[in-house]
Amino acid sequence: MRYKSQELTWPDFERIAKDGAIAVFAVGAHEEHGPHCCLQTDTIMSQALAERIADQIDAILLPAIPYGECWSTSKYPGTISLQPETLIALVTDIAKSLQKNLVRALLIVNGHFGNQSPLFLASRRMKEMLDYPVMVLDYPDIDRIFSEICESKPPAPGFYHADEFETSVILAVAPHTVQMEKAEPGYPIFPITYSACPTFLSDFNPNGVFGDPTKATAEKGWLILDALTEASIPIVKTFIESL
Amino acid sequence: MRYKSQELTWPDFERIAKDGAIAVFAVGAHEEHGPHCCLQTDTIMSQALAERIADQIDAILLPAIPYGECWSTSKYPGTISLQPETLIALVTDIAKSLQKNLVRALLIVNGHFGNQSPLFLASRRMKEMLDYPVMVLDYPDIDRIFSEICESKPPAPGFYHADEFETSVILAVAPHTVQMEKAEPGYPIFPITYSACPTFLSDFNPNGVFGDPTKATAEKGWLILDALTEASIPIVKTFIESL
Amino acid sequence: MRYKSQELTWPDFERIAKDGAIAVFAVGAHEEHGPHCCLQTDTIMSQALAERIADQIDAILLPAIPYGECWSTSKYPGTISLQPETLIALVTDIAKSLQKNLVRALLIVNGHFGNQSPLFLASRRMKEMLDYPVMVLDYPDIDRIFSEICESKPPAPGFYHADEFETSVILAVAPHTVQMEKAEPGYPIFPITYSACPTFLSDFNPNGVFGDPTKATAEKGWLILDALTEASIPIVKTFIESL
Amino acid sequence: MRYKSQELTWPDFERIAKDGAIAVFAVGAHEEHGPHCCLQTDTIMSQALAERIADQIDAILLPAIPYGECWSTSKYPGTISLQPETLIALVTDIAKSLQKNLVRALLIVNGHFGNQSPLFLASRRMKEMLDYPVMVLDYPDIDRIFSEICESKPPAPGFYHADEFETSVILAVAPHTVQMEKAEPGYPIFPITYSACPTFLSDFNPNGVFGDPTKATAEKGWLILDALTEASIPIVKTFIESL
Amino acid sequence: MRYKSQELTWPDFERIAKDGAIAVFAVGAHEEHGPHCCLQTDTIMSQALAERIADQIDAILLPAIPYGECWSTSKYPGTISLQPETLIALVTDIAKSLQKNLVRALLIVNGHFGNQSPLFLASRRMKEMLDYPVMVLDYPDIDRIFSEICESKPPAPGFYHADEFETSVILAVAPHTVQMEKAEPGYPIFPITYSACPTFLSDFNPNGVFGDPTKATAEKGWLILDALTEASIPIVKTFIESL
Amino acid sequence: MRYKSQELTWPDFERIAKDGAIAVFAVGAHEEHGPHCCLQTDTIMSQALAERIADQIDAILLPAIPYGECWSTSKYPGTISLQPETLIALVTDIAKSLQKNLVRALLIVNGHFGNQSPLFLASRRMKEMLDYPVMVLDYPDIDRIFSEICESKPPAPGFYHADEFETSVILAVAPHTVQMEKAEPGYPIFPITYSACPTFLSDFNPNGVFGDPTKATAEKGWLILDALTEASIPIVKTFIESL
Repeated sequence: MRYKSQELTWPDFERIAKDGAIAVFAVGAHEEHGPHCCLQTDTIMSQALAERIADQIDAILLPAIPYGECWSTSKYPGTISLQPETLIALVTDIAKSLQKNLVRALLIVNGHFGNQSPLFLASRRMKEMLDYPVMVLDYPDIDRIFSEICESKPPAPGFYHADEFETSVILAVAPHTVQMEKAEPGYPIFPITYSACPTFLSDFNPNGVFGDPTKATAEKGWLILDALTEASIPIVKTFIESL
Repeated sequence: MRYKSQELTWPDFERIAKDGAIAVFAVGAHEEHGPHCCLQTDTIMSQALAERIADQIDAILLPAIPYGECWSTSKYPGTISLQPETLIALVTDIAKSLQKNLVRALLIVNGHFGNQSPLFLASRRMKEMLDYPVMVLDYPDIDRIFSEICESKPPAPGFYHADEFETSVILAVAPHTVQMEKAEPGYPIFPITYSACPTFLSDFNPNGVFGDPTKATAEKGWLILDALTEASIPIVKTFIESL
Repeated sequence: MRYKSQELTWPDFERIAKDGAIAVFAVGAHEEHGPHCCLQTDTIMSQALAERIADQIDAILLPAIPYGECWSTSKYPGTISLQPETLIALVTDIAKSLQKNLVRALLIVNGHFGNQSPLFLASRRMKEMLDYPVMVLDYPDIDRIFSEICESKPPAPGFYHADEFETSVILAVAPHTVQMEKAEPGYPIFPITYSACPTFLSDFNPNGVFGDPTKATAEKGWLILDALTEASIPIVKTFIESL
Repeated sequence: MRYKSQELTWPDFERIAKDGAIAVFAVGAHEEHGPHCCLQTDTIMSQALAERIADQIDAILLPAIPYGECWSTSKYPGTISLQPETLIALVTDIAKSLQKNLVRALLIVNGHFGNQSPLFLASRRMKEMLDYPVMVLDYPDIDRIFSEICESKPPAPGFYHADEFETSVILAVAPHTVQMEKAEPGYPIFPITYSACPTFLSDFNPNGVFGDPTKATAEKGWLILDALTEASIPIVKTFIESL
Repeated sequence: MRYKSQELTWPDFERIAKDGAIAVFAVGAHEEHGPHCCLQTDTIMSQALAERIADQIDAILLPAIPYGECWSTSKYPGTISLQPETLIALVTDIAKSLQKNLVRALLIVNGHFGNQSPLFLASRRMKEMLDYPVMVLDYPDIDRIFSEICESKPPAPGFYHADEFETSVILAVAPHTVQMEKAEPGYPIFPITYSACPTFLSDFNPNGVFGDPTKATAEKGWLILDALTEASIPIVKTFIESL
Repeated sequence: MRYKSQELTWPDFERIAKDGAIAVFAVGAHEEHGPHCCLQTDTIMSQALAERIADQIDAILLPAIPYGECWSTSKYPGTISLQPETLIALVTDIAKSLQKNLVRALLIVNGHFGNQSPLFLASRRMKEMLDYPVMVLDYPDIDRIFSEICESKPPAPGFYHADEFETSVILAVAPHTVQMEKAEPGYPIFPITYSACPTFLSDFNPNGVFGDPTKATAEKGWLILDALTEASIPIVKTFIESL
């Protein structure tokens, strides 16, 4: 069962924390997702996974952070990007408050690539300076899950953005935010210097799609969410047992 | 009409921004609100006002920030507090992105006292360093509106927290988050050094209520929201006309 | 009796601190005060109050800080403005040294509105991180004292600057710095967006006066100082008793 | 003629700055100066020199900064020490305001060794980032002046602290702050690692005197001040001519 | 031909930069590399690649940075770890100086995984704020090259540390730093939470070897260096052509 | 005997640290040294001294830092300058790692004037915050050694740069980096404001030489190195005995 902190009073929170619940929240992004998916796609998808995980571990579900580190898409209209330091500070402040609140640990469900490095850095600092356990869960086993459920190919290894994968999940959990009639494939040619030089994605991909969202369906979305949840639970439970 | 960025694609966002829409978002808090109101009370209330304002000015409504600067309530379980610098950085990063996105201006609807100083500082810096207009709207005319609609007295001048005022609004817009049977008045005696020494509210008020929420009703809540909206619009329109 | 650190040697300081004296200093500003009052008005006035308080509690009076946070008047010639972070750092460094010096506590007498937020933040951090007690005293009961002693009206609630109030005190304690023949009233119309948008005061008030200094007299100044001292002492004594 | 900003209104300041006056202020320290000199010795002495220089160049004399970087004496009671970053920030903020105020340049008269490095760094940054001229004047020709006027020897080359030199100047300009009956020589043995390891002076010199203040007289003090002023003027005038 | 800045005078540097040479330097680490490889392994290997690249593009070869970000191995004796911010600042300062020196661009050859994120961030900032081109080259095509030349398997995908790959290169270019008689395989079991929780490698791998260095030979080392150089040149040349 | 960490494995490092060895490294600069000496002159010279000291105290010799704080020469081509904060951070990170590694103390051999202030600040902070002993050794007794061995005069007291002194040492230890045929004297006239205003050396000295390198010989270089080593050892040994 998930306990949404949006519905808890402080005595509720205190009681549940005392019972040993950990805290969970999603970190998304406010970022272009092609001409068919909304700017909150990463927040919606990570929130959906965070809810499912919270259900299985009886966690306190804190409000998601709806903004992320989006330098590489920052030239598309609609993208809002945080500096890495800002995201680190935000997550660190929250984790410190949870530690004071006697919440045993924090699980962050990350829905956006650009957040990985700042979130990992924040979790390191919480461990090293304050000895507080913070797990940062990126979609686990994503390559296997994609290849098992999706029909299309990613445009580059491990690159899933506004594609069949993400669009399917949004069609499942927030279909009103998808304009499927505008979905179109995007298979840009990556520059040879892509991973060595700072590169704005918009410089070589005008529509902002990386893959083929036209193959997306809500059914696949539910399968993906189930698979991600199933892959997450053993990792999360190992984390909790280690506390 | 409000345009929720959660439902916009990047071409939608680009078009609406080009048409001159400004951006609006609420900043709340994750903070104790007595034994009867939930930890997201300030976020819910400021979001409700932000939506109403956005409706009247055809603005882009960005996702609310559900965490705030809550030092003075940080000893109550459930409160999560950001450092002022973190909130400044967060708002500044968003505003800079909006400026790059050619959004004309930003309106922040603040729902929490502790956020005032960092939000004002962020708006100053956007003006001074980047010449970008940011308005920070605290509930305008709150003293008059309270005295016209509410029956109870505040425990100190200008101090409204988990009281008839806030509880009424939440009863109106998010009644499932209120546990009215647990509502109880709170009229603590403020220490004489209150405004001169850093003071945790929990040191002199164990239940976290400041006023009398037992007088709250959803009807009053709707009246309050209407009055706040009505008081906000002239200020906001003056701001927009000045752009 | 006040002990001015400007006249103490280090063995004197050590002995007085051991006897339990707290430290006191004023924080002023280097800021426009109309065509009749000097740029150090806030420093002079807060220093006068600090001296009177020190006299009554046998404190060590440290040198005043003659610069403050003056963003809103920074477009008038002669105003020098510190960043809030600078003032926080300055006060924090001093407080840390006092703590090492075994001085029991620090009382800051603030004479300028813009300093409030940074000074309060500094006092919070000293409490939270170092458990060192710092009180920041803004002129207490100022609304009552103004209305009891002064004839004029403030141009906005709680707004006293280069007016009857301040000018009277300077006429009392530093009359050579006042050019009364240049005093003129200033009752500007505040923009409706004043408290929501960062606003330079010079944008709507060319002379820098907020109220009516022509009503000022040295007699009123002495009365004001007496009243401020009288209002301060119980707060300060409660603080000292709590140490 | 010196223009003390403590006595200027903003229209005065504007007029004098327009006439080309530069700004001057002293930076001192709140630091032990033996059992006979007061904690503000460095501020008093640098202020005295700043006044004389201002007299000769018709400058605006801003209030002195009465605190400095005093790490090495921070273990003596009564010493208050700023972090170097704090002093840099303070001076930089003031210089930036002066630049906005159209004051042509800033001259800082430094009275304390520990301030040198932060003040020079601040002046570099003003030059490099903002192209604003800031001169930092340490007592020029001090070795020659000392040897010409004083009888005693310094305990180490270039080391003058609470000695015949400083005490003489204070006897001249602020005799009420000196307790000559407590003056005693201090010729500690400097550890061989002194300049290579961070060393608190109190570790090898309990009284805090470095030299022989018993030889101090007010007459020497006036001679020293005259000599320092005479040595300063050509440097300062060269600076002003270069603007 | 490589131009080692260690052997250039400033007029040499000026002339070569004017001729269009870019700058190159390696970033290594001071980090455990098992019981057989020295603590500078990453510096030596990245330096070897940087030299070969410089030879082919006629670049100025600056001194390598022999320290890196090594949090995850920081519990092994001998590891020295920089904070990410430190490495970012260091690289940014160098790049800014090169820009002032009119050097067209900077190529950083990175030899250590932990440096990737800070180096990429530094290159982003140089691009965004100063429009200065900085390429960060991690060993390109490393998976293919490893599988073509080496016999052993990595302990986890993409994880090469103190193994056949690195040891071979060091045996080729700095054989006196290898104690092959102490080489032993290391195939630790990675915890399931490895990529989600901050994890010290020493917690699950006491010898610090990740793979099988006993298969290493100098011959393989030369082949690896050739292959890495061959894979690097097209990327680097594309970068240079884009300037 | 010196232990070069470039040749040590982590078990070697652990063993030697346990035996009580301290760590030593040089800090140089990447800076113009006239038309005849290379840009790494300060690194080469300080490294030479660091090696000799390490030999006599059986220390672990870490890799030198080949970049330094070079603001004043930053307008000459080829100079690369670190911000003081960067150098402080770099040295502090290394020192913290050494403390974790149970290395008893750190000795830094500094070869460049601009590094003095940041290195001293770093050593202060390690002492004060972490109680870790760091010695910063500037060339000891340099005035005496220069006058005893060299024939030329310095252009200003204590100013040795690309002159007989430095050139001799480089001729001794790295003769291939010197182009003696280009050596020429440099005796610029220092501006009267030199020590009071931030001044680029290139503004009054086009060739970057300060003294007369034409008098340099390798023989003098060896004598200088011997003398510097001899002057260093008693200071270093006193430091080690104090641990």
